[in-house]
Amino acid sequence: MTVVTKEITFKSKGNCDVIDMTPQVGKAVEESAVNNGIATLFIAGSTAGITTIEYEPNLLSDFRSMWDRVIPQNIPYEHNKTWGEGNGHSHVRASLLGASLAIPFVNKRLTLGTWQQIVFVDFDNRPRSRKVILQIMGE
Amino acid sequence: MTVVTKEITFKSKGNCDVIDMTPQVGKAVEESAVNNGIATLFIAGSTAGITTIEYEPNLLSDFRSMWDRVIPQNIPYEHNKTWGEGNGHSHVRASLLGASLAIPFVNKRLTLGTWQQIVFVDFDNRPRSRKVILQIMGE
Amino acid sequence: MTVVTKEITFKSKGNCDVIDMTPQVGKAVEESAVNNGIATLFIAGSTAGITTIEYEPNLLSDFRSMWDRVIPQNIPYEHNKTWGEGNGHSHVRASLLGASLAIPFVNKRLTLGTWQQIVFVDFDNRPRSRKVILQIMGE
Repeated sequence: MTVVTKEITFKSKGNCDVIDMTPQVGKAVEESAVNNGIATLFIAGSTAGITTIEYEPNLLSDFRSMWDRVIPQNIPYEHNKTWGEGNGHSHVRASLLGASLAIPFVNKRLTLGTWQQIVFVDFDNRPRSRKVILQIMGE
Repeated sequence: MTVVTKEITFKSKGNCDVIDMTPQVGKAVEESAVNNGIATLFIAGSTAGITTIEYEPNLLSDFRSMWDRVIPQNIPYEHNKTWGEGNGHSHVRASLLGASLAIPFVNKRLTLGTWQQIVFVDFDNRPRSRKVILQIMGE
Repeated sequence: MTVVTKEITFKSKGNCDVIDMTPQVGKAVEESAVNNGIATLFIAGSTAGITTIEYEPNLLSDFRSMWDRVIPQNIPYEHNKTWGEGNGHSHVRASLLGASLAIPFVNKRLTLGTWQQIVFVDFDNRPRSRKVILQIMGE
């Protein structure tokens, strides 16, 4: 069995910036010494989340609108009294979406659907440096 | 260490069809050569999701009502202009629920609670052929 | 490869009780014979979920308020006719949040962000005995 861990670092813009991580993850799996196993993605941080989506501009717009409706930015958040950063909504959204995603791969290929991409969703209210952990485990 | 990957294929009806996958997953774990490890389930596709629930008809009805309230079908979606399939809500729901689930098993038994089943949730607006990846990893 | 499975049992208070599991999980990883791998957490039960959050009292209050808005307790639930326990909202919330979380660790340290804790969220409407499965897999 082999375990390969990578830190993927990048800058994100905040405000529901949705970043397609599929090429990077696919390449890391191809280049690893592992043929079959799981690629686990984990967000190190509490104002971003991870999921899959068809990475299509109109759908990304719908996805952002959903967050504005379901967990609005412009309602009172107690957390905004703690640090004064105004990102209470960002934290709550991130906790609901979730910080981990596990994708099996077979013969070094991720088992994604044709119209399915891995996305990092930045819920914060300002640009930030981000870190995602990618761990490849298998044989 | 052993890695076993199975593709589970089936037809789903759409419109929040909730399918109990527990017997299939439990059987695959029992029949594998692995005693202790993780069963990772991954939805290959962008209009369905996976979670656990008490598989009880009234609760399934409540679960469907929640989706109709939180992410309604009958509001405008930009995505519906892209492909004209009318399933913008399906994609947004799927991205929120999530595509992966990881369940530990011990002595070939899933560690589910007594009233807890593994379910595939089809958010699309029409019947479709579906593929779920089940990967069993352990020793 | 090594697989270590632990059952973490505790009492929770219900009504969106949010319990920080980070110290326990971190300690179990440190004490295991595994240096690099995945810590998979799984909720055995259908009225609780797991996620990460900045464990800060004001934010926990915002997180609870979100659940009260998005999946209210005081609307009719069909499930409440089935068992008469009045916890239909608990089940629906749990299914949306999700039952599993996978966290990579490196050199026996979880790859959490600085302000990010692992939390068990009890959605039930009464105190209960709870069981969370922690499985550590790696090398």
